[in-house]
Amino acid sequence: MTQTGGKQDKKAQQYGVTPQSVDFNDWYNEVVKKADLADNSPVAGAMVMKPYGSALWENIQRWLDDRFKATGHESLVFPTLIPMGFIMKEADHVEGFAPELFTVNKIGTEELAEPYVMRPTSETIIGHMWSGWLNSYRDLPFLHYQWGSVFRAELRTKAFLRTSEFYWHEGHTAHADEPEARAEVRQMLDIYHEFCRDVLALPVVRGEKTASERFAGAVSTFSIEGMMRDGKALQSGTSHYLGQNFSRAFDVKFQTREQKEEFAHTTSWAISSRIIGAIIMTHGDDFGLIMPPRIAPVQVVVIPVGRKDNFDEMVQEGEKLAAELRAQGVRVKVDKRDGVTNGFKYNDWELKGVPVRIELGPRDLEQGVVVVKNRNSTEKETLPRAEAVGGMTARLDGIHDWLLSRATEFMREHTVPVDDYATFQAKIEEGNWVLAHHCADAACEKAIKDDTKATTRNVPLDDAEFFSEASQGACVRCGKPSAYGKRVIFGRQY
Amino acid sequence: MTQTGGKQDKKAQQYGVTPQSVDFNDWYNEVVKKADLADNSPVAGAMVMKPYGSALWENIQRWLDDRFKATGHESLVFPTLIPMGFIMKEADHVEGFAPELFTVNKIGTEELAEPYVMRPTSETIIGHMWSGWLNSYRDLPFLHYQWGSVFRAELRTKAFLRTSEFYWHEGHTAHADEPEARAEVRQMLDIYHEFCRDVLALPVVRGEKTASERFAGAVSTFSIEGMMRDGKALQSGTSHYLGQNFSRAFDVKFQTREQKEEFAHTTSWAISSRIIGAIIMTHGDDFGLIMPPRIAPVQVVVIPVGRKDNFDEMVQEGEKLAAELRAQGVRVKVDKRDGVTNGFKYNDWELKGVPVRIELGPRDLEQGVVVVKNRNSTEKETLPRAEAVGGMTARLDGIHDWLLSRATEFMREHTVPVDDYATFQAKIEEGNWVLAHHCADAACEKAIKDDTKATTRNVPLDDAEFFSEASQGACVRCGKPSAYGKRVIFGRQY
Repeated sequence: MTQTGGKQDKKAQQYGVTPQSVDFNDWYNEVVKKADLADNSPVAGAMVMKPYGSALWENIQRWLDDRFKATGHESLVFPTLIPMGFIMKEADHVEGFAPELFTVNKIGTEELAEPYVMRPTSETIIGHMWSGWLNSYRDLPFLHYQWGSVFRAELRTKAFLRTSEFYWHEGHTAHADEPEARAEVRQMLDIYHEFCRDVLALPVVRGEKTASERFAGAVSTFSIEGMMRDGKALQSGTSHYLGQNFSRAFDVKFQTREQKEEFAHTTSWAISSRIIGAIIMTHGDDFGLIMPPRIAPVQVVVIPVGRKDNFDEMVQEGEKLAAELRAQGVRVKVDKRDGVTNGFKYNDWELKGVPVRIELGPRDLEQGVVVVKNRNSTEKETLPRAEAVGGMTARLDGIHDWLLSRATEFMREHTVPVDDYATFQAKIEEGNWVLAHHCADAACEKAIKDDTKATTRNVPLDDAEFFSEASQGACVRCGKPSAYGKRVIFGRQY
Repeated sequence: MTQTGGKQDKKAQQYGVTPQSVDFNDWYNEVVKKADLADNSPVAGAMVMKPYGSALWENIQRWLDDRFKATGHESLVFPTLIPMGFIMKEADHVEGFAPELFTVNKIGTEELAEPYVMRPTSETIIGHMWSGWLNSYRDLPFLHYQWGSVFRAELRTKAFLRTSEFYWHEGHTAHADEPEARAEVRQMLDIYHEFCRDVLALPVVRGEKTASERFAGAVSTFSIEGMMRDGKALQSGTSHYLGQNFSRAFDVKFQTREQKEEFAHTTSWAISSRIIGAIIMTHGDDFGLIMPPRIAPVQVVVIPVGRKDNFDEMVQEGEKLAAELRAQGVRVKVDKRDGVTNGFKYNDWELKGVPVRIELGPRDLEQGVVVVKNRNSTEKETLPRAEAVGGMTARLDGIHDWLLSRATEFMREHTVPVDDYATFQAKIEEGNWVLAHHCADAACEKAIKDDTKATTRNVPLDDAEFFSEASQGACVRCGKPSAYGKRVIFGRQY
């Protein structure tokens, strides 16, 4: 998508990363490995999160966890295994997940009469537990979530995006009535949206999934969708209204205020380690990652620039500068590596996407200045040390804003309203999202997918921030009347 | 162990908890359930951690995680599954773990030619990954850890103590030589000891395990051992020097400074969710739990004591008081439940072991006082509000100290040096630890276990804080010379 000149290509070769513009897929895989985010594992479909990736995931967890607690949710820990019979109880659920299940049929030397599955998601076992905990309307709502991993077979592995074991939180709540449950579904979708926009600098579209893209067992599924720099969509979070489907299957009922028996209305919602894929593919460039500053494991890297005879002294000075930045609440690392060139260090931290680099040499020290370079700029600035330190939070916020507006602009530029099928196919092929009217017929959606590999991403909500205008029209493929009263987003997806 | 009069028995019956002194096992199971720490699950051997238990585990994780990072360790995330063949590579390891393994032999509809096991511990897969990451001595040390759960078949489940799936961190480090690796093993043992003593108020004995109690594949295993209020031991953390056993099995080698090829020296260490069992069984009493204040999810509970017409007002006043306490860094909860009696609330929070209760009634409010009760006392104090708030941190520290000295005294009282086998058997039967000389012969240890159900807990280190005096003597059972130059701790264990 991006245009790169000969100079950038050379630089990219120097790092050993294929430029984005040459092969987006190779760029992604190389960046993930070389930035120390993740590695392949000897387990089919599973990855290893390395220190830099794990630190990023921890920051993501910390922010979301604080928010869940602040909105009254409680964490619990449910088993990794689920009795096979549980998965069978909700008809749509079993149809959706059966082909992907990991089956445990032996413990020690004992063959199991009824096997267990490794959880693909936990609605079933949580429903079972709830039925034992719930008696009266006074017990509700249950506002629960857990952090952990889940297991769904994947043939073609891609770190963070498609792994057989992936990492997430899953929220599960139970309510006395539908309006309260639906308000929860919306609340969590909005928290996800806020997190993406204000912390990760990711513009995402809030909307409802069409019937064929719903979670297996849900009444309504809502998602946030982001656009990657190759024009593909990445579903970055989901929030489901499950109605009484799971509560009926697992007998989650309670006595109402009016002394009647009623099944609970339940919800579930999740953001997974896929979101790291979204960060990489929304913000990265030919030089590697660009970490959104508010979630970056390292916000500022200090490079002591010394010769052999004064390197240790410059490292010490670097530590002093780092301490001043830490006192401002900034996450800083001093690169103390000896035996590698400054150029190597610069490239390494650019690849890792650290938002700000500070170079500190003996002459800078004498003059009371430092050299500052933002990851999203090619300019170096020489600034009085106090100004660099005091202005760091504002500088990081500036990089956040820059990333968010670049990504927003990109998404807007690559999203086009289309009313005829030939143009639809061409625009999808060029790597855009298409805003089109649709009849809501599943067979028609399927035909579009077969023709173009594009699926419905979502139907933007009225206050979705993007692409939410009401309009009428005819289905872009079959010509039947539009079913949604607005255009639907179609796109290829990860 | 504890003496309880008729009045306490009655009170305990009122809560519906069997007194400790009547049946320690029933007491434990009932407290775990009624305090909302955990529940049984439909998965054989697995538990569900409920909100109060999960909040406690989160606090434990937070403290340890900060400490690991402060000592230079990095978190990573490895897969839950391990190829069966990996477990087979280290001879002692496979012998130790084979009977407990969960086997996955089917993914989707595909039967696997080589099955996976759900990790019982991760030395093998981490060794495999390290062999790909390690080249030169410059890459070392690897200071890694991960949080997660592991799977070992358990027939007789008991929440936190024996569950097929349990929760832990596992530290894994690789070093260029043995002294550095052994220093790491000791550092982590000391961090565990500090955590138990200074945060959980648990006195624990640091020592080395005898050969027959070593981790499967270790050269040396060190443990911290605590004493429960029924006199049994609970191994509360372990730190292993693995020598080159796993690095040879997984080809974890590097080029030394002198350009030679060498296998790394590795370590592993862990504290698991069993530690919650130790907290319960060391500090609890007939009334329920007593939470050590520094880790307690709720340190202070405020009970607004109002009548129907002023209950809402008292809840508001309770919130004001809670805000003042939070400003002191105290974790507070206001019990706003309507429709239950104050007595019910008092009992409920005593059962949950909240260290301090504050009652706030309309008359107290007028007079500018509050009623304060420590969980470890039967006295209520009426204090000026400002004094109660300002003194809360010191009060919590006082409860910590009280718990630690009570547990230390109990451990000292119930640990006896013994030199003849008849007394050994009697003292074990009475619920003590015995300090005895031993010949170090595995068959002799086994005979003692068969006779008494007691095993060696550990051989206290020279600076173990407890029971570390050097001495010579004859094996308490067979009369051969002592092998350790000091007495070994024997005890029944969880």
